[in-house]
Order: sequence, then C-alpha cells, then structure tokens
Amino acid sequence: MATQGQVITCKAAVAWEPNKPLVIEDVQVAPPQAGEVRLKILFTALCHTDAYTWSGKDPEGLFPCILGHEAAGIVESVGEGVTEVQPGDHVIPCYTAECRECKFCKSGKTNLCSKVREATGVGVMLGDRKSRFSINGTPIYHFMGTSTFSQYTVVHDVSVAKIDPKAPLEKVCLLGCGVTTGLGAVWNTAKVEPGSIVAVFGLGTVGLAVAEGAKAAGASRIIGIDIDNNKFDRAKNFGVTEFVNPKDHQKPIQQVIMDLTDGGVDYSFECIGNVSVMRSALECCHKGWGTSVIVGVAAAGQEISTRPFQLVTGRVWKGTAFGGFKSRTQVPWLVDKYMKKEIKVDEYITHTMTLGEINEAFDLLHEGSCLRCVLEMHT
Amino acid sequence: MATQGQVITCKAAVAWEPNKPLVIEDVQVAPPQAGEVRLKILFTALCHTDAYTWSGKDPEGLFPCILGHEAAGIVESVGEGVTEVQPGDHVIPCYTAECRECKFCKSGKTNLCSKVREATGVGVMLGDRKSRFSINGTPIYHFMGTSTFSQYTVVHDVSVAKIDPKAPLEKVCLLGCGVTTGLGAVWNTAKVEPGSIVAVFGLGTVGLAVAEGAKAAGASRIIGIDIDNNKFDRAKNFGVTEFVNPKDHQKPIQQVIMDLTDGGVDYSFECIGNVSVMRSALECCHKGWGTSVIVGVAAAGQEISTRPFQLVTGRVWKGTAFGGFKSRTQVPWLVDKYMKKEIKVDEYITHTMTLGEINEAFDLLHEGSCLRCVLEMHT
Repeated sequence: MATQGQVITCKAAVAWEPNKPLVIEDVQVAPPQAGEVRLKILFTALCHTDAYTWSGKDPEGLFPCILGHEAAGIVESVGEGVTEVQPGDHVIPCYTAECRECKFCKSGKTNLCSKVREATGVGVMLGDRKSRFSINGTPIYHFMGTSTFSQYTVVHDVSVAKIDPKAPLEKVCLLGCGVTTGLGAVWNTAKVEPGSIVAVFGLGTVGLAVAEGAKAAGASRIIGIDIDNNKFDRAKNFGVTEFVNPKDHQKPIQQVIMDLTDGGVDYSFECIGNVSVMRSALECCHKGWGTSVIVGVAAAGQEISTRPFQLVTGRVWKGTAFGGFKSRTQVPWLVDKYMKKEIKVDEYITHTMTLGEINEAFDLLHEGSCLRCVLEMHT
Repeated sequence: MATQGQVITCKAAVAWEPNKPLVIEDVQVAPPQAGEVRLKILFTALCHTDAYTWSGKDPEGLFPCILGHEAAGIVESVGEGVTEVQPGDHVIPCYTAECRECKFCKSGKTNLCSKVREATGVGVMLGDRKSRFSINGTPIYHFMGTSTFSQYTVVHDVSVAKIDPKAPLEKVCLLGCGVTTGLGAVWNTAKVEPGSIVAVFGLGTVGLAVAEGAKAAGASRIIGIDIDNNKFDRAKNFGVTEFVNPKDHQKPIQQVIMDLTDGGVDYSFECIGNVSVMRSALECCHKGWGTSVIVGVAAAGQEISTRPFQLVTGRVWKGTAFGGFKSRTQVPWLVDKYMKKEIKVDEYITHTMTLGEINEAFDLLHEGSCLRCVLEMHT
C-alpha cells in the first residue's frame, strides 16, 4: 500500500486521563518494526475490561493510552521478518499472543504465551520498549497489545490471527474477546461433558457464550443466575434452561442452587468479576467433583475466599483467560465455525455505532439491554 | 467365636471431655446389627485429626467418645446381611466408606461415599442412630465411623477393607489414613507426571508420603518445605531432593520457590492444615498450569484466600480426602503393593507403645521426631 513505511495519521479515541471522556484525536501511527504488523482496524467492539482500565481502578493502567481489544481489520503493512501475514490479510488482533516458542506455548498446557507480555503489560512494543502511537511527538501508550480504538494500530506478529477473508469483519470482531472467552471456558477449561448440570453467574456476553458452549457440549441443564429478570428471555436463545434471581431468595444463592440440583452443579462459571459471586459459584458445586471456573475479572486487590473444606471434599477451583484458546491457531478455527453456523456471533451484537460515538457507546455498555456495541471505525 | 452375639467388655481410651487426658475404661461393645461388623482392633496409630477433635476445636466433636481411625484388626463377628467379610478376616477399618451404590460411588469421579456419612458424622450407627459403645449404660459416641482406640469396635460393613492375611497388621494399620492420603493426593488427585517439579509443605507422615508418591510418579525435583531443619535428613529417604526453611528467607516462601524453579512448581501439596500455607502453596505454582492440592485439615471456621488472578492465569486449586482412594477396593491394593515392597510403610513408624500409654503417645505426636506411633491394643 502507498502508506507502507510511512507514518499514518488517523483518528483514534484517546484516554488522556482516567475516568474522563475519550477524545477523538488525530494520532500518528509509526510504521511497524521488525516482528510487528500495522493493521487497519475496521470494526471494534467495547468490552468491560476497557471500561475497567479507563475508570482508573486498574493499578496497571497507563495514561494517555488508546484502549480497545475486541476488533477485526486488515493488514496494512508488516515489519522485517514477518512471514505469516501480509498486507491485505484479514485478521483479528489478539491480546493473548501465541509465539509457539516460549515455555508456555511449548508446554501444551496453557494458552498464556509469555513472549510479548512484558512489553504489552506496560503499554509498549517489545523491540524498543516504545510506543508506535504519538500525538505531535507525545507518545500515547498501547493497551493489551491491541489498542483497537484507533483506525490504525501496530501489534506484534505473534498477536495476529489470520482469518477467512470471506468472514464479515463487523461480526467476527467479537471473537477477539468475549464470545471466545465464554466458549473456551466451557470447552477448554472446564471440559463440560454431555449430561452435565451447569450454572452460569452473570448473563452478559461472556455468560451467554458460556451457556451456548455448554449447550453445544450437551449439558442437560443450564441454570442462569442474574439480578436482572429482563435478561432471561434473551438467555433462553443461548441455551439457558432455568433462571434464578438471587434477589428472589432469602437463602444464599449457593444453597438455592444446591437445593435445585440435588446437591449442586457439575460445573459453574463466574462471568461477572465479583469476588463474592466467585465464592457462591464454587460453593454451589457438587461435593466430590464440582468444578468452578472464574471467567470474570475482579478489580485489583480483591480476593476470593472459602473454607478449605470445600476443596478437600472434592470441588475444584480454576480460572480461564481468553477461554484457554491458543489465539493464532484457534481464533481462525472459531471464525470457520461461525461461517458454518456452528456458533452464534451476530446475536451478541445489540448496537452499532461509529468511532465518534464511543463515549455514548460506553454509556450503553452499563445498560442491561446492551451486549455488544460494535463501532464502525471509518465512517 | 464364643463372643458372637454377646456384649464384649474390653479396654478403650475414652475422651470424656475436650482437652482432658484420655481414660482407659472398661467399655461394653454391643454386637453388630444388620450391615455392621465388630472388629478386634490389634494395632492403631495416632493421627493429628484425633488430636484435633480431642482438643475441642472441632465444632463437630462429640463427647464422650472413643477416638482413633488409623488401625488394623480381625473381624470378630458380623451382623445380618453382611456377606463380604466373615469372622477371622484381616481388615483395615476405613473412615471413608465405599458402598458402591450411592450417587458418589457410582459417579466414578470421587471416593466420597455418602451412605453412612450422616450417621458417622454424628457419632452413631446408621441403622438405629445409636452407639454400640457404652459404659454402665452411658452411651459413648463413635468417631469417624471407626473408633479404633478400643480393643473392639463396631463399624459399618461398607467401611471395612479386607486385606491379605499375611500382611503384618502392626505395619499396615498406617494405610488406614496418613500414608494412603499422601500417596493418593499425588496419584489420584494431582496425577503428577514424570519430570514434574513438586513442592511439599510440611514433612510429617502425610508430606513424606506425598514425596514418596511423587518420586514413584517420576517427579524430577521434590522440594520439601518445613520450619524444622531436622526433618530434612529423614525426608531424603522418602524422595525429597531439596529443602527450604521459610525461616531462612526474608521473601515470602512462594517467591522463594518461584525463584528456585524458574516460575513455580507444577504441583504443590499442603500437608499441614494451615490456611496461610495453603495460599503459599497455591501461589508458588507455575502460571498456566500449576496445580495445588490441599491435603491438610484446617481448623473449623478458617478460610483460604487468594487473588482470583492466580486462578485466571491458570493455576488450579483442589483438595483431597483419603487421597481420593476408594477404600474397600484400593486399600487392599495398597497392602499388596506394600507386600511387594513397592511402597514404604515401616519407615513411618517411629514409636510403638501400648493402649495404656496413649496419653504419652499423643505428647510424642507434637514432637518433630515422631511420625507415627503405633499402639499395641492387647498387651
């Protein structure tokens, strides 16, 4: 492309300070260096993790920065040594990298690649520990190695999943985080078997994806737990078979669930990020084998607790990040599943807006009716 | 036997009140009822769980009672309908029953049989919710469904493991609790693979059995953690390859272990019952896959806690009871392994005494030099 090797000036939503409205700015995006890829972001969705860092509650949040991590786009140019993608490829940037070379990637036991984590955790690129974003010479931090609230972004090559060019980018951008996380929590982390009884705490995008994954895995009952009764009707379409609102009960919710299930569920999933709910999710599991998976992200400094007796009597407490999926290998596979209509994606998109409306879009995210709002980046 | 169907009067150590010396009394032991077995206990060891209930700190402890749960003996008589053992059989009473009929036994996922738990948890027999022990008409509670600090005891038939009559009862009594728990924590609960790095917190009987199990499983490094340096030499014989005393370090022990192991261990085992150590044991596990197993029993009301991030980044928190072994099926298998010299048992026995010396034996249990003290019951 004509822009290759050049600084690109484009629009991006910049978080100058915690908890202040994002500002659409003209941002300079430097060309990709060795092992880096510059992407034209076409669509990005908003996720609660963006909102969390933006709020200032994330002690690792750095400002000014460009947030955003659930998106899809096209490779604009590649840096030296990049062989697996080329300009024009359709891609999903992935905050969980996959280098296939580090101790983690080689272990066969986890999707948590360590190659670029050190740099992405502090908002810079690995090569020179600097940002590729700037405004009139002032560097702007990257976020989660993705920074998709910009029309162009630079990411590490190990963080780019090349996907079927026929896939609609305005939909499959969701596979960059929430839907993938929920499905993977069920399929990779919990490994739910046919006939299982499942509890899902929190019926947002991730919780609904858990329900969908559990249904696909053959769960016999999928109990959705949420404090908003309005969420049940929609949840049925994703596989939830029963609904429990903790506000309707005097007893602790774990007791309610145990009573409903003759001793507890086989698998539970916390999809909120509330440490007290994480405890309930563990304790509503069946003695002897019930497994609880933490999917939600709790605020910094918060702790989970329980009596050790809960574990000694056979319950298992786990967690998941990006649903345990290997990003570069498996995101394309998920896109293919979507193209074959084996997994839902469209159904999670409740709103579409433009980059210029990003602050309104964040307001929507806090409403129960909103699952995912997708921003068109170039209109 | 001539005593069949008769009340037997024999010696037993009775805990009349919490934290008061046990008293050797003449106790009446009623004949076994339907589904029950009366055992002549020949040897019993002492375990910290006995000491815990005796101390009065166990809110479920009932007094007066006859403690004891790690023993071996011979069937004296059986109640109606008992078919799997007969008088003269050599047996190990098991506090974890195995009925092969309940939801738990049939699940294939746990060793926690539920059939008699309701009764054994409150110190009585399932059939009539009464005790078979009395002193001049005053009932004395059972303990853990075993009460082996008596020359004769009555247990449920689902709690009796029939073993090779050639096995030395004065040794294999240890397979009724501690050694079995440690080995099973490694083999059944953690499923340690060859080449794994293992940390064992607490080098008492259970911790040493964990080390032995890990060595047998092919662990490449077995790091023993204890605050008593004197325990290391002995621990080497059970497979511990490195020793760390938390008192020798300024840094938190989890950090010390992570530094020693390039990021953490593959498996850790807490064999003390200290909730703060349980946290360290989890947090010294490797990101991405490290699994921590709680083996020790914490005091009532105490809680474990950690940051959910520990689990979200791939660590797994589990627990084990009786090492996940199915008691009636697998205790005889362990006895056979001992007879084939495939597992140690003798090496855990540091002291032998008589029933009359039981209070002195409990004093010994609190000394670092003591692993197991076995009491001869009929001398």
